[in-house]
Amino acid sequence: MASNKVKIGLMGLGNIGLGTYKTLEMNREAILAATGVDFEITKILERDVDRERDIVVPREKFTQDADDLFKDPEIQIVIGLLGIKNEGDFMLRAMENGKHVVTANKAAIAAQYDELREAAIRNNVMLRYEASVGGGIPILTCLTGALQANQYQEVLGILNGTTNYILTQMTDYDLNYEDVLKDAQAKGFAEPDPTADVEGIDVANKLSILISLVFGERVRPDEIPTTGITGVTKEDIVAAAERGCKIKLIASARKNGDKLEYSVKPTEIPFTHPLAGVSNEFNAVYVTGNAVDELMFYGRGAGPLPTGSAVMGDVIEIGKAIVKNAAYDLVVAGGK
Amino acid sequence: MASNKVKIGLMGLGNIGLGTYKTLEMNREAILAATGVDFEITKILERDVDRERDIVVPREKFTQDADDLFKDPEIQIVIGLLGIKNEGDFMLRAMENGKHVVTANKAAIAAQYDELREAAIRNNVMLRYEASVGGGIPILTCLTGALQANQYQEVLGILNGTTNYILTQMTDYDLNYEDVLKDAQAKGFAEPDPTADVEGIDVANKLSILISLVFGERVRPDEIPTTGITGVTKEDIVAAAERGCKIKLIASARKNGDKLEYSVKPTEIPFTHPLAGVSNEFNAVYVTGNAVDELMFYGRGAGPLPTGSAVMGDVIEIGKAIVKNAAYDLVVAGGK
Repeated sequence: MASNKVKIGLMGLGNIGLGTYKTLEMNREAILAATGVDFEITKILERDVDRERDIVVPREKFTQDADDLFKDPEIQIVIGLLGIKNEGDFMLRAMENGKHVVTANKAAIAAQYDELREAAIRNNVMLRYEASVGGGIPILTCLTGALQANQYQEVLGILNGTTNYILTQMTDYDLNYEDVLKDAQAKGFAEPDPTADVEGIDVANKLSILISLVFGERVRPDEIPTTGITGVTKEDIVAAAERGCKIKLIASARKNGDKLEYSVKPTEIPFTHPLAGVSNEFNAVYVTGNAVDELMFYGRGAGPLPTGSAVMGDVIEIGKAIVKNAAYDLVVAGGK
Repeated sequence: MASNKVKIGLMGLGNIGLGTYKTLEMNREAILAATGVDFEITKILERDVDRERDIVVPREKFTQDADDLFKDPEIQIVIGLLGIKNEGDFMLRAMENGKHVVTANKAAIAAQYDELREAAIRNNVMLRYEASVGGGIPILTCLTGALQANQYQEVLGILNGTTNYILTQMTDYDLNYEDVLKDAQAKGFAEPDPTADVEGIDVANKLSILISLVFGERVRPDEIPTTGITGVTKEDIVAAAERGCKIKLIASARKNGDKLEYSVKPTEIPFTHPLAGVSNEFNAVYVTGNAVDELMFYGRGAGPLPTGSAVMGDVIEIGKAIVKNAAYDLVVAGGK
């Protein structure tokens, strides 16, 4: 049997990178015991070596040259957590150098979906991105794995924690959008520039990825009709409540005959619907399949450790395949 | 590449067997397109050839001799849906004949867990049983796959649709247990002999399987302190509501230091807890991991098609491994 050691290059040691590093440190022994694979992050592409971190990361792991990861013959998996616009280009270079790639960067996957998939297949490496949709919720792996005996009719998602927190606070405490946003920014639940969240751009990226996996169609994020929550008033919320509904920012895609309908917009969800109970920063994906019927996955859609859980879940799947020298699906979209 | 055809022997064409057969018939073309594998159920072990069924099953597929499945060199996967006590013995014979095995029979898995796992490893075949816990909810595959970077602190489940339906009706309409049970039996939501459901025996079987996968410990169902719902009165439910809680039949297991605590019993769940919103025949599993934190999986815990979805999901995973001649985990409990 091949060596059970799998070495990893990590691109980016910001919040998510650190959460991923910690997830492995916390659970490395248990992962080894359960899977037989010994994972180690040996190199980290990160400028900020001296940043205050609550876990010791050996200085010698740091580099500022991506080729130190891509050209290292011992590194088999590269994790892309730079969170930058052109991260896809880094991932392409990693795959051209024969590295398997895992990422949480939804914008990069949504923007270069076909190019990245083709690179994985061309270079015979795995590309996985569970963390790009729903944070810690293992929705992509389920939709393309355990649920693959289904044809899907509809997918509905609450896919952004910031906007769900704001709408929940507006609903529960009868507050204005602006006041809750300020409070959320103060608590760090919202970015100083919240545009990508509150205008639905982040959700459109995630829906684009979901549509590709659920319906096998390629819809670019900028092709998805997208309305954020900046126009939602507390009067709207009260009026919805009088109709027995909560207002949620819903990403939806459904088959209407052969036509695929999709949108991101504030939507009235009946109190009795499972999605109505998804509050504050939590995310959920609600899907209906022609065999399994209704399913909902609920959990933390963001945060360093939940996202690290999803990233490391992908890394472990790849590592198990490497160590067993197994054939595998090159991309999570399970197939062909 | 090997042939892309995978032939299946099905043991049992009752409700679940028929749901599995239909799931494949409905989605066979889509599964082939997505996975590249062409699945066919070629033989069915079933006495009742003439039963009225709402789908045509060719008579020549039927046999009453299990060896017609086990000794058929073309059959690579045997699905065990007889729902009988000694089904484990049939599964053992199938594995000894080199067949991969998929089942939904929680009692058989819980009763012979070690023996069945060892037989899979000894015979180098896969044994999968996603449908045995949570019906269509892909909880076992998630816990042992996408979430395997976690160490789990707690698992809580609503794992029986009959009892959850009864408790929901008692709660929502202020009814007595006996009246709701009669109504549920009339509607077919409860068995003529409801003992295994209402006494929590079915749930204890499922919790035994969950504990094995979540905590890696073997606890036999009869070792789990189990209390059913027959003693729950509408007064109990009203008193719980005054404390802001609903009464649910909860299967729970948690680590207390090194000690594992587990039980099946009616439990007060705060209205604000995600499990409180799981009503009627729906099931849910709520798990906390040390990286992913809180997760809940919600869906249909029973029914022919949801269960068929889980069974076929396992069959497809095995079929993909066969066709790719892949190395794979022999048992869903990921590894070793």
